[in-house]
Amino acid sequence: MDSSNNSRFKVIKGDAGYVLEDVPHLSDYIAGISTYPNPLQSHPAYSVVKQYFVNVDASVAQTVVVHKSSQRGIHFRRAGPRQRVYFESDEVRACIVTCGGLCPGVNTVIRELVCGLYHMYGVSKVLGIEGGYKGFYSRDFIDLSPKVVNNIHKRGGTVLGTSRGGYDNTKIVDSIQDRGINQVYIIGGDGAQKGAELVCEEVRRRGLKVAVAGIPKTIDNDILVIDKSFGFDTTVEEAQRAIKAAHVEAESFCNGIGVVKLIGRHSGFIAMYATLASRDVDCCLIPESPFFLEGKGGLLEYIKKRLKENGHMVIVIAEGAAEGLIPQNQKTRNQLESLESKEFGLWISQRIKDHFATEDMMPINLKFIDPTYMIRAVPSNASDNNYCTLLAHSAIHGAMAGYSGFTVGPVNGRHAYIPFHRVTAGRKKVVVTDRMWARLLSSTNQPSFLSSSRDVEDKNEKEPSTPSLDGENYNKTGTNGVAAVL
Amino acid sequence: MDSSNNSRFKVIKGDAGYVLEDVPHLSDYIAGISTYPNPLQSHPAYSVVKQYFVNVDASVAQTVVVHKSSQRGIHFRRAGPRQRVYFESDEVRACIVTCGGLCPGVNTVIRELVCGLYHMYGVSKVLGIEGGYKGFYSRDFIDLSPKVVNNIHKRGGTVLGTSRGGYDNTKIVDSIQDRGINQVYIIGGDGAQKGAELVCEEVRRRGLKVAVAGIPKTIDNDILVIDKSFGFDTTVEEAQRAIKAAHVEAESFCNGIGVVKLIGRHSGFIAMYATLASRDVDCCLIPESPFFLEGKGGLLEYIKKRLKENGHMVIVIAEGAAEGLIPQNQKTRNQLESLESKEFGLWISQRIKDHFATEDMMPINLKFIDPTYMIRAVPSNASDNNYCTLLAHSAIHGAMAGYSGFTVGPVNGRHAYIPFHRVTAGRKKVVVTDRMWARLLSSTNQPSFLSSSRDVEDKNEKEPSTPSLDGENYNKTGTNGVAAVL
Amino acid sequence: MDSSNNSRFKVIKGDAGYVLEDVPHLSDYIAGISTYPNPLQSHPAYSVVKQYFVNVDASVAQTVVVHKSSQRGIHFRRAGPRQRVYFESDEVRACIVTCGGLCPGVNTVIRELVCGLYHMYGVSKVLGIEGGYKGFYSRDFIDLSPKVVNNIHKRGGTVLGTSRGGYDNTKIVDSIQDRGINQVYIIGGDGAQKGAELVCEEVRRRGLKVAVAGIPKTIDNDILVIDKSFGFDTTVEEAQRAIKAAHVEAESFCNGIGVVKLIGRHSGFIAMYATLASRDVDCCLIPESPFFLEGKGGLLEYIKKRLKENGHMVIVIAEGAAEGLIPQNQKTRNQLESLESKEFGLWISQRIKDHFATEDMMPINLKFIDPTYMIRAVPSNASDNNYCTLLAHSAIHGAMAGYSGFTVGPVNGRHAYIPFHRVTAGRKKVVVTDRMWARLLSSTNQPSFLSSSRDVEDKNEKEPSTPSLDGENYNKTGTNGVAAVL
Amino acid sequence: MDSSNNSRFKVIKGDAGYVLEDVPHLSDYIAGISTYPNPLQSHPAYSVVKQYFVNVDASVAQTVVVHKSSQRGIHFRRAGPRQRVYFESDEVRACIVTCGGLCPGVNTVIRELVCGLYHMYGVSKVLGIEGGYKGFYSRDFIDLSPKVVNNIHKRGGTVLGTSRGGYDNTKIVDSIQDRGINQVYIIGGDGAQKGAELVCEEVRRRGLKVAVAGIPKTIDNDILVIDKSFGFDTTVEEAQRAIKAAHVEAESFCNGIGVVKLIGRHSGFIAMYATLASRDVDCCLIPESPFFLEGKGGLLEYIKKRLKENGHMVIVIAEGAAEGLIPQNQKTRNQLESLESKEFGLWISQRIKDHFATEDMMPINLKFIDPTYMIRAVPSNASDNNYCTLLAHSAIHGAMAGYSGFTVGPVNGRHAYIPFHRVTAGRKKVVVTDRMWARLLSSTNQPSFLSSSRDVEDKNEKEPSTPSLDGENYNKTGTNGVAAVL
Repeated sequence: MDSSNNSRFKVIKGDAGYVLEDVPHLSDYIAGISTYPNPLQSHPAYSVVKQYFVNVDASVAQTVVVHKSSQRGIHFRRAGPRQRVYFESDEVRACIVTCGGLCPGVNTVIRELVCGLYHMYGVSKVLGIEGGYKGFYSRDFIDLSPKVVNNIHKRGGTVLGTSRGGYDNTKIVDSIQDRGINQVYIIGGDGAQKGAELVCEEVRRRGLKVAVAGIPKTIDNDILVIDKSFGFDTTVEEAQRAIKAAHVEAESFCNGIGVVKLIGRHSGFIAMYATLASRDVDCCLIPESPFFLEGKGGLLEYIKKRLKENGHMVIVIAEGAAEGLIPQNQKTRNQLESLESKEFGLWISQRIKDHFATEDMMPINLKFIDPTYMIRAVPSNASDNNYCTLLAHSAIHGAMAGYSGFTVGPVNGRHAYIPFHRVTAGRKKVVVTDRMWARLLSSTNQPSFLSSSRDVEDKNEKEPSTPSLDGENYNKTGTNGVAAVL
Repeated sequence: MDSSNNSRFKVIKGDAGYVLEDVPHLSDYIAGISTYPNPLQSHPAYSVVKQYFVNVDASVAQTVVVHKSSQRGIHFRRAGPRQRVYFESDEVRACIVTCGGLCPGVNTVIRELVCGLYHMYGVSKVLGIEGGYKGFYSRDFIDLSPKVVNNIHKRGGTVLGTSRGGYDNTKIVDSIQDRGINQVYIIGGDGAQKGAELVCEEVRRRGLKVAVAGIPKTIDNDILVIDKSFGFDTTVEEAQRAIKAAHVEAESFCNGIGVVKLIGRHSGFIAMYATLASRDVDCCLIPESPFFLEGKGGLLEYIKKRLKENGHMVIVIAEGAAEGLIPQNQKTRNQLESLESKEFGLWISQRIKDHFATEDMMPINLKFIDPTYMIRAVPSNASDNNYCTLLAHSAIHGAMAGYSGFTVGPVNGRHAYIPFHRVTAGRKKVVVTDRMWARLLSSTNQPSFLSSSRDVEDKNEKEPSTPSLDGENYNKTGTNGVAAVL
Repeated sequence: MDSSNNSRFKVIKGDAGYVLEDVPHLSDYIAGISTYPNPLQSHPAYSVVKQYFVNVDASVAQTVVVHKSSQRGIHFRRAGPRQRVYFESDEVRACIVTCGGLCPGVNTVIRELVCGLYHMYGVSKVLGIEGGYKGFYSRDFIDLSPKVVNNIHKRGGTVLGTSRGGYDNTKIVDSIQDRGINQVYIIGGDGAQKGAELVCEEVRRRGLKVAVAGIPKTIDNDILVIDKSFGFDTTVEEAQRAIKAAHVEAESFCNGIGVVKLIGRHSGFIAMYATLASRDVDCCLIPESPFFLEGKGGLLEYIKKRLKENGHMVIVIAEGAAEGLIPQNQKTRNQLESLESKEFGLWISQRIKDHFATEDMMPINLKFIDPTYMIRAVPSNASDNNYCTLLAHSAIHGAMAGYSGFTVGPVNGRHAYIPFHRVTAGRKKVVVTDRMWARLLSSTNQPSFLSSSRDVEDKNEKEPSTPSLDGENYNKTGTNGVAAVL
Repeated sequence: MDSSNNSRFKVIKGDAGYVLEDVPHLSDYIAGISTYPNPLQSHPAYSVVKQYFVNVDASVAQTVVVHKSSQRGIHFRRAGPRQRVYFESDEVRACIVTCGGLCPGVNTVIRELVCGLYHMYGVSKVLGIEGGYKGFYSRDFIDLSPKVVNNIHKRGGTVLGTSRGGYDNTKIVDSIQDRGINQVYIIGGDGAQKGAELVCEEVRRRGLKVAVAGIPKTIDNDILVIDKSFGFDTTVEEAQRAIKAAHVEAESFCNGIGVVKLIGRHSGFIAMYATLASRDVDCCLIPESPFFLEGKGGLLEYIKKRLKENGHMVIVIAEGAAEGLIPQNQKTRNQLESLESKEFGLWISQRIKDHFATEDMMPINLKFIDPTYMIRAVPSNASDNNYCTLLAHSAIHGAMAGYSGFTVGPVNGRHAYIPFHRVTAGRKKVVVTDRMWARLLSSTNQPSFLSSSRDVEDKNEKEPSTPSLDGENYNKTGTNGVAAVL
């Protein structure tokens, strides 16, 4: 067994190709730190649990599809309560911050952090940071008790408020230090997790006993390594509503086209799953799948064909689908360059209208629907609520156990602690050379636009990709080092 | 490598403790059966997929939480399309039957079987059996085409109709043989899967080239081995509605008690997850968790306490919770014996009313809600819709590949083919000595009713149990031989 | 012009048969009571309104369908703000009480009373009585401010709590007097409005300057005179959900029968409108419409016929439908006598099951759904929300204008003040000899059960009846003295 | 009694100022036309109805708020079945066409026309015209039977398809004549009703026995005379969803502004009622209410004030609110002139952003939501479903009774036949000098923008206005000749 250990990379190896990518721990840099028995041992609800505590050695396999002679591959540390904790209950002074855009479930995570700390570990000092990272030094903190957060999971948005970027890492850690905070829970996306890593490094540099835990939030479901992000089910469910409306509009008019723009700046998961779930969609455009407009095999030709066959059609466009559009002339290239990604849906709708008005001379009725804010503002559904509870509890158990500098999430259905750098190394992508996308193509009947997988490869080769929630959408040798799983 | 092979048990062993529990195949008993290249190879949607076909050797691990020196344990055959198939497209004559009670998603599975056979494999002969197994010999078959089933996923129930039990296995196989059917898709619960196994054995005995595939359906989520059953998310979501109503009723009256009876004849998964998701419940009673009514630490004492503290409370009772009630006198024992399980919710409501009317002399306002039929009749939500697609596709790929006598479902998030006997060997149960139930106890504040895990063990010891959808609710050495997963 | 005036009956006559049934006023018994200019005159929102104040003489016609030489008939005093008010803003000490069962919209009425008093008249002393009438003397009052009630309309139930009956009128008025309350708003049904009348009489006897206003609440929509009661639209909407589930269950089983019990103890409005709105119902039984079970033309024969034709059916049963059942033998008569009205749905379901099991020997699959509590606990929809605002404002304007002893509600779409005795004189009934019920019969195809209108008349002759919300369901010369309107 | 009678204007006068504005009839221009007894007399469902048939002389008063010596005022002919009809059942050849934009309930009206004709009058020849008026001569007609339309009310849109304008009246009447159609049902808005009038006149000119009935459709609720248009309740309900989302977005960000654009090209009914129902809106802009942006008392100042007070705000903007904007400089005037009305919401959002970015230097977070297509595509709710039935039945009874050239709708809650010219003479408007708008101002706290009612008058004086659904929003002496109703 060999084990390399630095602030960011802790790798442990075992039998038959077993590799554990471990997370940092307070004891890595605080010598002689005290430990205490986990109070859950005497908790009335938990004491009945057999083998409640996670074995110090337990890990979760990233690879579950194997052959009879496969190597065991990469593992992550199993999430869950440990026999010994590194904080006494009345010593804990926790804080929670929410960053970035809205996503169903944020309030549930907040609620469950507060209630979990209180009910499981008897922690009653939990503070809310308002308005994102900046709030650490520009706003008063607010007290969060189980009573205060009791019903917030029934509301959309975030009761703490949020913001993006533009903060000062040093000031944040100053504030943490000055106020004696020793557990920091950060609910946020890619940027916020990178920020959390910086906070963590600064905390370590100062030698502070502060556990930093990330709960990954992304409405796009594009976080690497983890199975799916919270709020995703709710989002896909709500997206159906817009697709249904587009379908009704399209059906009711001659040559009706309903265009729905769905969330997904760099990845098309929501568009793909909403398309598959609704089965009323004739074409789905996502950033990962190259397409072109004009000529044989292009989108415009396909639209004309569908209108002739069916009299109407529904098109779903992921916010960032511009990434997939291969411009066929300089004019389009220029237009795309000056276009904000969120305007692409409108732009392409206009292009379609122009085309049929001036070239194919075919009157169409196009309706454009952008349900973005109506989707992301709903409260999380039951399935996401329960998922949020597990994430919050994992984060709490990890922090209490002294881990610091980790994010939480399920890997093959089992919750694990994952080093920040693994989830911020890139974005999860829909792998258009895998079965789920093929399923979509088969369901919509849209062309794959490119005749061979070679083209796809050329376009995508620099981008990392990773398993998705269906367990089928994976790649072979992405930058993550994910082993071949088939 | 060693491999034992009979009609039901095919076990293959490999390195480091690897065990594959394989499923039967037509070639097990039909010598020299022909194979053909999979038509997906030239399918426009699928041809772009790299390594589309599942490696002949791929399997899915049942155990994903491990140590660095763990044995590799039990595996199941990976689901998915194979390079070679055992049916030509125009040779296939498939039929679909639905059995047992309603469950959200049945129509989606039917739709996806029909559309999947047609769009993926070019199969256009798909027949629907009406009214359950009996329909094989007592009703005309109906033609199912993609057009016919196009919108059925938006409706609850089953368009094929359903029934329970009381059928003649020989007549079924006669009908299959007489009509030249060679693929049978059976959507049904425990009983139906057992029936499928009998059909399969009879088919084998007659040496017929008929592939029999089961798609496991149970609204209770109590199927062994698989991660969860379709419709479960939808069901838990819909159950929130009843809990919310109970909460409103309880809050609006002095000493208001809202009692909600939820689906779950032998297992409390819906009750547990709905309770956790709603967070408005003060007590959840399930078959797996022993409880008693009278005296210190009993339910009635707890009710009184909650009413004094809060003025109102919500109780969720799984249909089969009577299994958990420990009768404290002969009268109760007699009453329970003559009680149908579905009447237990009403019975205990009356007991509570009587108690407070005659003993505690405390006026209460109890409202009993039974949302059973309103829950199970809703159409499946987006998440279940997508799940149903995967199940249907797995079943199709398996049948086309010549497997016969298998059920489909995800194991640790990856779809697998599982021998019938593994899923019909018992029922999955909520393991009340694991963390999820502890979480519930902590969330509701209800007593665990029994002071030590010993009592629980005594009550549960004969019952098999198995991992649940959260990846935490597992047992150690159940009758299934599931390896320790922590 | 003639005008008779006593504490309860104030009748004013005018041209061409004009009759005004007026409401009592504080000045009826308090001599020399002061008046003040209405503060709305200088209110920024209201000052722009032309002719904002209701003419002192304005009334609303109960009869709008007329002939060219019709008499003008009965009128009620028009609701709305008056030029002069009888309370100064800072003198007002208002209280609100909610009584009886839950109904969507109660919280909205509470909210709008509090916000209306505050925003329109600058009244800031508004108290909530908890737990119904009893709360006047057995509980502390709670302060209600616009901030406290700001979001309560989004929740079902009543934030004040409620109860039924069993209170002491003298103690209530003592409490009103002792605490210096001078405006009492009572949200409640028939019983509560009668109680309000008693409070009002006692207040008058004591010569107190206390305005008593009723806001009629009944989920059954059976209040006389007014067009419809608040919450009715929401209730009918929600009832669809249960009917839909019953339809799915019925369709999925051979000879499936879905039975839905709907709210309506003495009147079938919800059952009738929900049946008409859903169009999936084959039979609707209500208290007002006589029916019988056995023999030619009976319910059982009709069920058999529908099952043979369609294979399934849906039956809607109003809670009080037992009133309509004509027992055909002594046994049934005895059973009905000992049956609580709310048990009738279950009773008749069992009768149907027994019949087909023992007499017609036809296997059926009957599912019984009782969605009562799930319906009445939902928050009010947009339409009811706006309606509740109008009711609350009418009540406030009336009380501020010195009227006391009135209930509010729209008459032919215009809000009016109606004497208590007019709304408590009986219950509004579905008139089964009018067009709406004929429409239902035509939509369900159910038999009218009785061959001639004579039978109906015999059964119904003692019961008052009145126009319903569709403006078609009226009677000619009911006990209310409603003039012929056709 | 005096009676003037021409093709369009039939006015009958009676006692005490009674005026009946009657509708045209086939017998006006077809001499000796035969009549038949109404088949409803022997209909099993209807025969029990007493006085089922509308008295030949019955009318509905437009004015219900009166004084004791008021004149009786304008009346319309009461809708409903007549004792004698002008068509034999097997002679009828009806057609249905839908025109203009989508609106919840169109399919329900179609369904109820087909089912009503069939079930009430035994008419089985009902044809659907596809794609609007043009379909009369450019498309095949489709057969509509009760079975075909049985479930269409559960879907949004129109199963017949629709289109706007651009048709040839002569060709339409040619088609009607050539195909022997004798009842034409037109579901459409202002333009379609005008078209119906032209069809009617041409039919009359040719002396054809063709009854033309209009069912007024407008999602804006801006049809004159009638209480409200179908789909309005559903629309307001659905609009809540967008307002809720805007509120969540606004609350979650610092200086968050949620802007919701709601349907209403020339009238603000939806915006007003949705604002009142939700109570989460801080400002509502409609075409009828003048407002300005800059300076003291302007919108921008108000926004700044609300953000300072509350930290966030929600603004609702009716589609046509540009009509209300008073440009304060030439630049704005020019921009407005070149702006399509539907772009105004985006335009003003940009103006607000620019203002706070460049002038007030206050960072804001503005989110713009346009839910238009998601709102209008939903199926109608229960309340609208029942309303649609009444409209369809009124139209059928009227056509069968030989009336031709009328539209249907409730006046003061009673259904009436109204001459086309009365509903197409203008548009119903929110009267901002009446109480409902004052209620809104008071609820939102927004300024009335203009200090005196004089300004409002100046802006609105040329526009007709009329009572709205709440019975309070009326004018005194509008172009409709509506009598003073207070």
